[in-house]
Amino acid sequence: MSDAPAQPAESGGLTHVRGDGAVHMVDVSEKQITKRRAVAQAAVITTPEVIELLRQGRLPKGEALAVARIAGIMAAKKTPDLVPLCHPLPLTGADVELSAAGDRVEIRATVKTVGVTGVEMEALTAVTVAALTVYDMIKAVDKGAVITEVRVLEKEGGKSGPWQSEDRRDA
Amino acid sequence: MSDAPAQPAESGGLTHVRGDGAVHMVDVSEKQITKRRAVAQAAVITTPEVIELLRQGRLPKGEALAVARIAGIMAAKKTPDLVPLCHPLPLTGADVELSAAGDRVEIRATVKTVGVTGVEMEALTAVTVAALTVYDMIKAVDKGAVITEVRVLEKEGGKSGPWQSEDRRDA
Amino acid sequence: MSDAPAQPAESGGLTHVRGDGAVHMVDVSEKQITKRRAVAQAAVITTPEVIELLRQGRLPKGEALAVARIAGIMAAKKTPDLVPLCHPLPLTGADVELSAAGDRVEIRATVKTVGVTGVEMEALTAVTVAALTVYDMIKAVDKGAVITEVRVLEKEGGKSGPWQSEDRRDA
Amino acid sequence: MSDAPAQPAESGGLTHVRGDGAVHMVDVSEKQITKRRAVAQAAVITTPEVIELLRQGRLPKGEALAVARIAGIMAAKKTPDLVPLCHPLPLTGADVELSAAGDRVEIRATVKTVGVTGVEMEALTAVTVAALTVYDMIKAVDKGAVITEVRVLEKEGGKSGPWQSEDRRDA
Amino acid sequence: MSDAPAQPAESGGLTHVRGDGAVHMVDVSEKQITKRRAVAQAAVITTPEVIELLRQGRLPKGEALAVARIAGIMAAKKTPDLVPLCHPLPLTGADVELSAAGDRVEIRATVKTVGVTGVEMEALTAVTVAALTVYDMIKAVDKGAVITEVRVLEKEGGKSGPWQSEDRRDA
Amino acid sequence: MSDAPAQPAESGGLTHVRGDGAVHMVDVSEKQITKRRAVAQAAVITTPEVIELLRQGRLPKGEALAVARIAGIMAAKKTPDLVPLCHPLPLTGADVELSAAGDRVEIRATVKTVGVTGVEMEALTAVTVAALTVYDMIKAVDKGAVITEVRVLEKEGGKSGPWQSEDRRDA
Repeated sequence: MSDAPAQPAESGGLTHVRGDGAVHMVDVSEKQITKRRAVAQAAVITTPEVIELLRQGRLPKGEALAVARIAGIMAAKKTPDLVPLCHPLPLTGADVELSAAGDRVEIRATVKTVGVTGVEMEALTAVTVAALTVYDMIKAVDKGAVITEVRVLEKEGGKSGPWQSEDRRDA
Repeated sequence: MSDAPAQPAESGGLTHVRGDGAVHMVDVSEKQITKRRAVAQAAVITTPEVIELLRQGRLPKGEALAVARIAGIMAAKKTPDLVPLCHPLPLTGADVELSAAGDRVEIRATVKTVGVTGVEMEALTAVTVAALTVYDMIKAVDKGAVITEVRVLEKEGGKSGPWQSEDRRDA
Repeated sequence: MSDAPAQPAESGGLTHVRGDGAVHMVDVSEKQITKRRAVAQAAVITTPEVIELLRQGRLPKGEALAVARIAGIMAAKKTPDLVPLCHPLPLTGADVELSAAGDRVEIRATVKTVGVTGVEMEALTAVTVAALTVYDMIKAVDKGAVITEVRVLEKEGGKSGPWQSEDRRDA
Repeated sequence: MSDAPAQPAESGGLTHVRGDGAVHMVDVSEKQITKRRAVAQAAVITTPEVIELLRQGRLPKGEALAVARIAGIMAAKKTPDLVPLCHPLPLTGADVELSAAGDRVEIRATVKTVGVTGVEMEALTAVTVAALTVYDMIKAVDKGAVITEVRVLEKEGGKSGPWQSEDRRDA
Repeated sequence: MSDAPAQPAESGGLTHVRGDGAVHMVDVSEKQITKRRAVAQAAVITTPEVIELLRQGRLPKGEALAVARIAGIMAAKKTPDLVPLCHPLPLTGADVELSAAGDRVEIRATVKTVGVTGVEMEALTAVTVAALTVYDMIKAVDKGAVITEVRVLEKEGGKSGPWQSEDRRDA
Repeated sequence: MSDAPAQPAESGGLTHVRGDGAVHMVDVSEKQITKRRAVAQAAVITTPEVIELLRQGRLPKGEALAVARIAGIMAAKKTPDLVPLCHPLPLTGADVELSAAGDRVEIRATVKTVGVTGVEMEALTAVTVAALTVYDMIKAVDKGAVITEVRVLEKEGGKSGPWQSEDRRDA
């Protein structure tokens, strides 16, 4: 029952997988607490007609997109309950943006913490659950809608410094 | 404080959004309990080198993909906690398949219930959380990995009968 | 270690408390599955100035009250996690209404199930968590706001038949 | 997709609502970690006969009020799962007091943290869930019981300093 | 991506493990809904001095064992969140008994459902979480306490009929 | 409604139980944040035939023990949701080991935090939920399996310094 150390990330290994192939929640006890921030995106592809229905959220109590925003924020807080090897983190901020145009809903989440690990999983969880919520609302009229382009856009804080996705730098 | 009825689905409306734009958990008290099944998929696009690392799960305790499978199954049970307007359902079965080849991990979930509503949200939640878990494991070596092609493939049971995605019929 | 039976409800006893004073989740295995519905209310008393701020939810993305509605619906599903002796129930519908006027926000929830026990706890949980969410949003401007008048208004389904609160009949 | 800043609290705005009306979990990354404490109360109004039944908790295993106390403590820890825009906080202490006399149960919760935001939401959640649990136990004998007077009594720690409700100062 | 069937239980196989070694939540869609009941036990071994402290729960608000009872009942409802391949079930009753004597606390749970699978996991979860809660309360005075003898005592309902542990029949 | 202080641990009292017998989540606001670590164990006693079936996890997708490992890690994070008076802690690492040989599965969990209280409850929760998951997988072939020898082996960090169970020192 040895505590075999994970392959070091520098050598191209998977940090969550130990030398014997077993998974663990990696020890971050020695990592520094720093301010961290991550931005992720997702998109839901549907039809222009469905986008028009979603925009009827402009009625007096228009909440079609609000429910997805709130679902995303709440899901960010549940990340360690969903992703088995993810460390719990005290989130210090979360924003979820949705914009519906053409045949798609674009979703972007910004999550912040002051902690020992990054918050890219929290930002990704926020956008995917917001996207699932959009699908749930439109599935009666478009079962074939697709969630796509789920990725981390930016990450900052921690030893490794700021990072941006190449796609974004190109855009 | 009237209980304004939702726009009927037949007329192209969003079932979760009432006539005044407010959201609700739609009343399904009158729906029949039937056997239901849904299949969903997702893909994680990374690099061939990372796929090779994941396959080192073939070591004695190789669990790199098992953790994603189990995360997906557990997430299916949490769907009504994540998707705000989703009804709770007694799941009667859940399978999550992962296959890693080339530069991608393909994920497919089959979820079953005997209940009053379909289980496409549960199948979609299973594949997206499995995909998030794959991302979590590879993020130290590929922050730029993308989750894509998240869709329902098949659905059966209930009044509306069997449904298959067009993409799949074409394939 | 006897399974002492609860004091029968007919004799004026508390159903959740056994003859020896210990609590339990009472056995409802023999109860009939019927359609059930409950309506509950709550009110948050604040100031006219704060009510005006909440109504600025009429801005393009006005969501100040939507977040409370969604919190209430989600909380209804969590009732058996919160109230220790409450049975889990498959909710078949949930509506939460909020109206802000004068110096108060009035909240009303209607919850439905097809099950063996009533859903008054779910309706009460929905209105109280919606009220807590309203307080959370206004606490920066009115820490002294009060949640009050939390009660069940109506209940129907089950052996005991329909019930209405006396206050309501008077109104 | 701009990150529009929230209206500043000093100008009378709602901190959780941005300039465009959308909600977010406000950024508290810059706030200082300090010792914080909040006290909240609630009351359940029923009948003297029901209060007498609750006091039969003085039997050998009298737990009628204990279950409400424990439900309140556990609920305090669930606050960020219930209140959508509430930050997760590491609670460092929680006490829930219940006293049954006359026709009412009075509930008071004291919650502590060492963190970046106050714990008034946790204290309010504790007293409301304790009150819901009291209602759950007595509903077989008094469906018309009312939860009322739910308010924050005291708050200390953080930049804004100590605060007491006016009602309490008068009492 | 075949849905390889599980090895049949009759042939001595593990139902949750498919022919290829992967785990799944086995399909119970065809199983009959019947009344089911399971009884499980656990014991916490400590010292006579600690048992005496626990019995000071006989003070006015003596709740030392009540908290374990309530934790056990609440945990029974969380079983499918904890045990990955366990089906969600609508529990219809739960009793947890604790008796403290000599150097040990004995715990027994009886759980009931009307559903498609047995409730032995729910009964085992109830007794183990009650035992963990007892340990939590006494750990300041006896870190060396041991939880032991956790087993299913009886099970009834379902196709396989009633079952009793051999130990118990002997006792 | 006095905040009666708990009996001091030094005098042999139960820290979670106040002088009047009521339970509370004890105030740890003044405790120092230090690196902490705890190791716990559990064993599942079954038959050599069942152990052989579990080892068929050596098939291509052998996951019979992986699912228990992952369940244990996830449960460690849920400890404050399960054990009512347990403080929430930011876990910084978790390892669960399982070894199947002879007629038993031995489970050992190591949990780490940088926080104000020890993590022995988290380590115990990890091993017990892993053990429940093993039972769940084998119950179709051995309902009589027993979970036993659940104890804390080691604990370090905090004011009280390192601690080892006597059993272990003897071994």
